[in-house]
Amino acid sequence: MAGENEVELRERAQEVMGQIFRDGVKGDQMAGRSLAPEFFDLASAFCFGGFWSREQLDIKSRSLVTVSQLAALGRTDELKLHLQGAINVGWSREQLIEVLMQTSQYAGIPAAVQALNAAAEIFEDRTTG
Amino acid sequence: MAGENEVELRERAQEVMGQIFRDGVKGDQMAGRSLAPEFFDLASAFCFGGFWSREQLDIKSRSLVTVSQLAALGRTDELKLHLQGAINVGWSREQLIEVLMQTSQYAGIPAAVQALNAAAEIFEDRTTG
Amino acid sequence: MAGENEVELRERAQEVMGQIFRDGVKGDQMAGRSLAPEFFDLASAFCFGGFWSREQLDIKSRSLVTVSQLAALGRTDELKLHLQGAINVGWSREQLIEVLMQTSQYAGIPAAVQALNAAAEIFEDRTTG
Amino acid sequence: MAGENEVELRERAQEVMGQIFRDGVKGDQMAGRSLAPEFFDLASAFCFGGFWSREQLDIKSRSLVTVSQLAALGRTDELKLHLQGAINVGWSREQLIEVLMQTSQYAGIPAAVQALNAAAEIFEDRTTG
Amino acid sequence: MAGENEVELRERAQEVMGQIFRDGVKGDQMAGRSLAPEFFDLASAFCFGGFWSREQLDIKSRSLVTVSQLAALGRTDELKLHLQGAINVGWSREQLIEVLMQTSQYAGIPAAVQALNAAAEIFEDRTTG
Amino acid sequence: MAGENEVELRERAQEVMGQIFRDGVKGDQMAGRSLAPEFFDLASAFCFGGFWSREQLDIKSRSLVTVSQLAALGRTDELKLHLQGAINVGWSREQLIEVLMQTSQYAGIPAAVQALNAAAEIFEDRTTG
Repeated sequence: MAGENEVELRERAQEVMGQIFRDGVKGDQMAGRSLAPEFFDLASAFCFGGFWSREQLDIKSRSLVTVSQLAALGRTDELKLHLQGAINVGWSREQLIEVLMQTSQYAGIPAAVQALNAAAEIFEDRTTG
Repeated sequence: MAGENEVELRERAQEVMGQIFRDGVKGDQMAGRSLAPEFFDLASAFCFGGFWSREQLDIKSRSLVTVSQLAALGRTDELKLHLQGAINVGWSREQLIEVLMQTSQYAGIPAAVQALNAAAEIFEDRTTG
Repeated sequence: MAGENEVELRERAQEVMGQIFRDGVKGDQMAGRSLAPEFFDLASAFCFGGFWSREQLDIKSRSLVTVSQLAALGRTDELKLHLQGAINVGWSREQLIEVLMQTSQYAGIPAAVQALNAAAEIFEDRTTG
Repeated sequence: MAGENEVELRERAQEVMGQIFRDGVKGDQMAGRSLAPEFFDLASAFCFGGFWSREQLDIKSRSLVTVSQLAALGRTDELKLHLQGAINVGWSREQLIEVLMQTSQYAGIPAAVQALNAAAEIFEDRTTG
Repeated sequence: MAGENEVELRERAQEVMGQIFRDGVKGDQMAGRSLAPEFFDLASAFCFGGFWSREQLDIKSRSLVTVSQLAALGRTDELKLHLQGAINVGWSREQLIEVLMQTSQYAGIPAAVQALNAAAEIFEDRTTG
Repeated sequence: MAGENEVELRERAQEVMGQIFRDGVKGDQMAGRSLAPEFFDLASAFCFGGFWSREQLDIKSRSLVTVSQLAALGRTDELKLHLQGAINVGWSREQLIEVLMQTSQYAGIPAAVQALNAAAEIFEDRTTG
């Protein structure tokens, strides 16, 4: 990030977020966002502009990494957002279900069940994928 | 499991599940199950047919192990299922409440409170135990 | 605690709880409490009477410790109680939001988002802070 | 614990600890103990005197609960102590290995592997069990 | 897995393990393996033969999922094994470092630091990657 | 952070790190740092320059938040660094021991024991505090 200013950090973040969340970040409606808008501004700039936008790994792989970790950690709300993102960047429902199934082996069956229940909500609402 | 085929693995799983969940696995209504039926099929065969059915430890002890771990890990949905199971295989409500109380010492008070709240839902719905 | 009896342990607990939760412990309505009243009695005596009341660290600092840990561990229900407590012992909303923002660095962004959503519920309901 | 004084709390703790850790609490050599002796004093009194000594659940079952939770949470040092304790109160090595194997289903395979590695250290050092 | 016998489950596991761990499963030297050989036999058959070998997701993607989850969960010993595996199935060191860096955003900076320290051990020992 | 460039972000990070880690960040010797220097560069800029340097909460309070969270999460290596930092910004050993003792109530006794063992290493090496 040497030498660039934070406007560029934010611009890169916007571009990545556009690819994964497309028309409308679902997080918009979260209560925490109106309580602490600066947090979401900083966290997005750093996370998407600082890490996701790095060229050493493509966005489709990064999306898989994120879905995998959120499922393992039991972060269901974020998992739903990133399951949508994963479909937007090219993973199929079928592939994502396999990821969640395999989660049972490394984080336990209850983690996989919780993640699959979350996926059922997301995949039901979509016609594509 | 040497030499047996997977039909036997599933049969053993069914027998164990019959003892702990009796008439009706509550999980039936879970959204994830209809999204990924193969997962629940595989996971049940491996978990109940591969581990729970081993003779080296009896089912009543295995039920206690499971309730203890789900409470410590904060897996509330699965905990509810296995609290019902624990009563079905012979633990009393009073004993199970002690397990959840003791959880506070190893996983923290909030883990115990969350587990006791889950237990309150289950124990209220039952006349036995 | 040498030499004192448990009545004193409970009295000290009551005093600390009075300072942090003031008029009415919100936990009163929890289902687990009616299932296992002895647990809440023991846990309060030990936690507030045994630890929080020790003179080596003031209550305002202890409140910050607790809010920080509950946010990091994702214990949302207890976090809400202790965010209220933190305001009661003198922390401002603005300071507490900073704590939750910083949580993103040590426990991950999803932990911070979950905590900020919880805070939004609490801070909305209050006129002070 | 109504009406008793803390001397009794400690006496009950000593009795339980004598049963599970017998001749010598292994924790004695821990660095933390000399840094904060009051903590170990308080924590033992509350944990063993306040919870483990309650009559509603026997010590052998409580030992199983504890081993299960420490394995699931990845608390390896404490797990070793309580695996020794579990053997002291009547569980066999073979039964305890089953507990750790089953842990793979609820907390993931890596948790079970870590716990079995810990058990190998303990069981190697003993001639009984 | 309908209709096949467990010999096939194990054969599929061996094939997958051959691809990811190649010449020698590093786990061979683990103390837990000699204590509970049946566990490693069962867990391998179920994990690699039951999940990893499913055609709906390729092994290279599954390897990324596993590395991501082990890093997020702080399972360092298993992470080292699977970082080696990830290189064996075609990921570069540079890509894997990105995965561990991004882990900081979802599981916190300390999780990423711990994972990068583990990676440093693995990547130092290898001439390829 | 509006309008400033990343040089400023890094300058602010350096200033905060100078206050908490003083003469020499202990992390310098970590293996991961030589593997992924860019990560430590980015993470420091964002964490210390983006969050810790915000005026809404003072550094001494932020240090307490961090120690509390690292103890609760069981991140022992980072905990040691930040226990040193906490003493550098004005907390006493005695106060920090209380923080770690109280951790037992929210994250379980094993978390507190692990943290106190880590503290024993740090406090032994220092003459002040």
